Amino acid sequence: MAAMNPNLISYLPNLRVVDCTLRDGGLVNDFYFTDEFVRALYQANLKAGVDYMEFGYKCSKNIFSPDRFGKWKFCDEEDIRAIVGDNPTDLKISVMADVGRCDYEHDIIDRKDSVIDMVRVATYVNAIPTAIDMVEDAKQKGYEATVNIMAVSKVDSEDLKNSLELLAQSSADVIYLVDSFGSFYPEQIRRLTDQYMEVAAKYGKKVGIHAHNNQQLAFANTLEAMNKGAGATYLDATVNGLGRGAGNCHLEMLLGFLRNPKYKMIPILRFVEQYILKLREEGVVWGYDVPYLLTGQLNAHPSSAIRFIRDGRSDYYHFFHELIDDTL
Amino acid sequence: MAAMNPNLISYLPNLRVVDCTLRDGGLVNDFYFTDEFVRALYQANLKAGVDYMEFGYKCSKNIFSPDRFGKWKFCDEEDIRAIVGDNPTDLKISVMADVGRCDYEHDIIDRKDSVIDMVRVATYVNAIPTAIDMVEDAKQKGYEATVNIMAVSKVDSEDLKNSLELLAQSSADVIYLVDSFGSFYPEQIRRLTDQYMEVAAKYGKKVGIHAHNNQQLAFANTLEAMNKGAGATYLDATVNGLGRGAGNCHLEMLLGFLRNPKYKMIPILRFVEQYILKLREEGVVWGYDVPYLLTGQLNAHPSSAIRFIRDGRSDYYHFFHELIDDTL
Repeated sequence: MAAMNPNLISYLPNLRVVDCTLRDGGLVNDFYFTDEFVRALYQANLKAGVDYMEFGYKCSKNIFSPDRFGKWKFCDEEDIRAIVGDNPTDLKISVMADVGRCDYEHDIIDRKDSVIDMVRVATYVNAIPTAIDMVEDAKQKGYEATVNIMAVSKVDSEDLKNSLELLAQSSADVIYLVDSFGSFYPEQIRRLTDQYMEVAAKYGKKVGIHAHNNQQLAFANTLEAMNKGAGATYLDATVNGLGRGAGNCHLEMLLGFLRNPKYKMIPILRFVEQYILKLREEGVVWGYDVPYLLTGQLNAHPSSAIRFIRDGRSDYYHFFHELIDDTL
Repeated sequence: MAAMNPNLISYLPNLRVVDCTLRDGGLVNDFYFTDEFVRALYQANLKAGVDYMEFGYKCSKNIFSPDRFGKWKFCDEEDIRAIVGDNPTDLKISVMADVGRCDYEHDIIDRKDSVIDMVRVATYVNAIPTAIDMVEDAKQKGYEATVNIMAVSKVDSEDLKNSLELLAQSSADVIYLVDSFGSFYPEQIRRLTDQYMEVAAKYGKKVGIHAHNNQQLAFANTLEAMNKGAGATYLDATVNGLGRGAGNCHLEMLLGFLRNPKYKMIPILRFVEQYILKLREEGVVWGYDVPYLLTGQLNAHPSSAIRFIRDGRSDYYHFFHELIDDTL
């Protein structure tokens, strides 16, 4: 083969693959996954050598009604244990906690009493102090903790710089670059990753990448953020890209790329075959489509594209003009 | 917005966008496009500021029966003229001529009598001398000429090096990097583009990129090959990615990225809305799907994945093992 690269032959042992299928996918079906689905995904991730499996959100039941959402929006301890027992495996378990949507003091118990290993705090840039409070709470309780700044493509450069400094001085283990709107091109991801890495290195933190597929760049941007070992080491992906709107980096693409023999793509392939195709047949809709390209290009929230598709519309031309009216 | 890049604000005036919708798309429907479709595409490309529109192949009717293929497999002069007249526009017209499938001495007439502007010679690495003969023939007749080495991912590094040297010494204007199997990752595309550019620069040639979307990397690899102006300047794309198997770089993605005010995405968006959706409804199948990921990962020809999908199969696990048996 032409131009073999030793980097594509060797592998980076410090990478961590985080499967977010239930969490980002739950945004598509209101977290109504069957236990069979969740159990099969857990088994597939185990066999695939995935490092973390995110079960869902730790949302407050005072804010969101358990009547209107499946259980993975809340991730009760006993619900996770019903799937994994005491999880006597190398696959770590994570949950996401959104600033302002989580009674973290109360709902996140001590790690010694929990089967959860990692708490990922998701925040907008204007709520960094609360995010740090949540990170410190999780760390004091014994968890690994990440902090994920959402919608960075809407954040002013100076604000981002200050946020990263604050977060890097917190107890968080990992700071996540999140392309919420799927609007970044690889060259932007590279520059942002470099910026995150610079601050992270100063304080001994790691960097993660969470990409969306609006412009079919989620996989490419994940590779770019890795920067052949000089960049992000926590890599988010979902099976078949299952996730809100255009979805995420496909786990089967990522595992097919990684050369570490611990990672196996085939168990994920089987899971797609046995469970994901059924989900699509049942009418769950996600993945690249033209309307997501347009919100991505315009750096807009995907919600209007989700509605456009749900309404069965295909008048892209009008949609584009609606978007321009909304965003300008 | 965070981390603005002047490169994403300014633009590169030397880029050339080549629409291959009819040519690569013709491989999906045996070139049976209606005149209405072709005329509308021509109008859309005109309005979009696309630089070249490839109408199809110049295939020999002694080798391929006109009864079994639509007219764009042959691109007779009068068929193109029926669409474009004398083409009194800035949109140039190209055709592809495959080594061994084209009676180029006879079927490619003098440019002064033709509405065609550019002949693109497609060759495998083992037929470079014939490809050069075809290039010289086209150049002598007055055409712009490119040479496209297919299936480079299967070519030995040393053979590629020698081929590039030979081609760069020919009269070809552009040498194309072609990722036929959609198997290259961006870091490989960058290295290969650098290699092509080095040889091309020595002899005053330009470099082009033609990517396939097996791993959803066609757009990303096209961006990577451009290397912010230091790489490929001839960029192939097709509307909605229409092309064999997983298809190509989506023209609407590329135009949405390019900042040159001459390029407009909206006419292409309208064409998708008015013509491409209908094509899909009529049962023409292309675009990313799991089987193409697998042939891409294994650097295999997409034909087995095309058959798998045509047969309505979804047993990815078995397919993967069939592929491994075939490729190892």
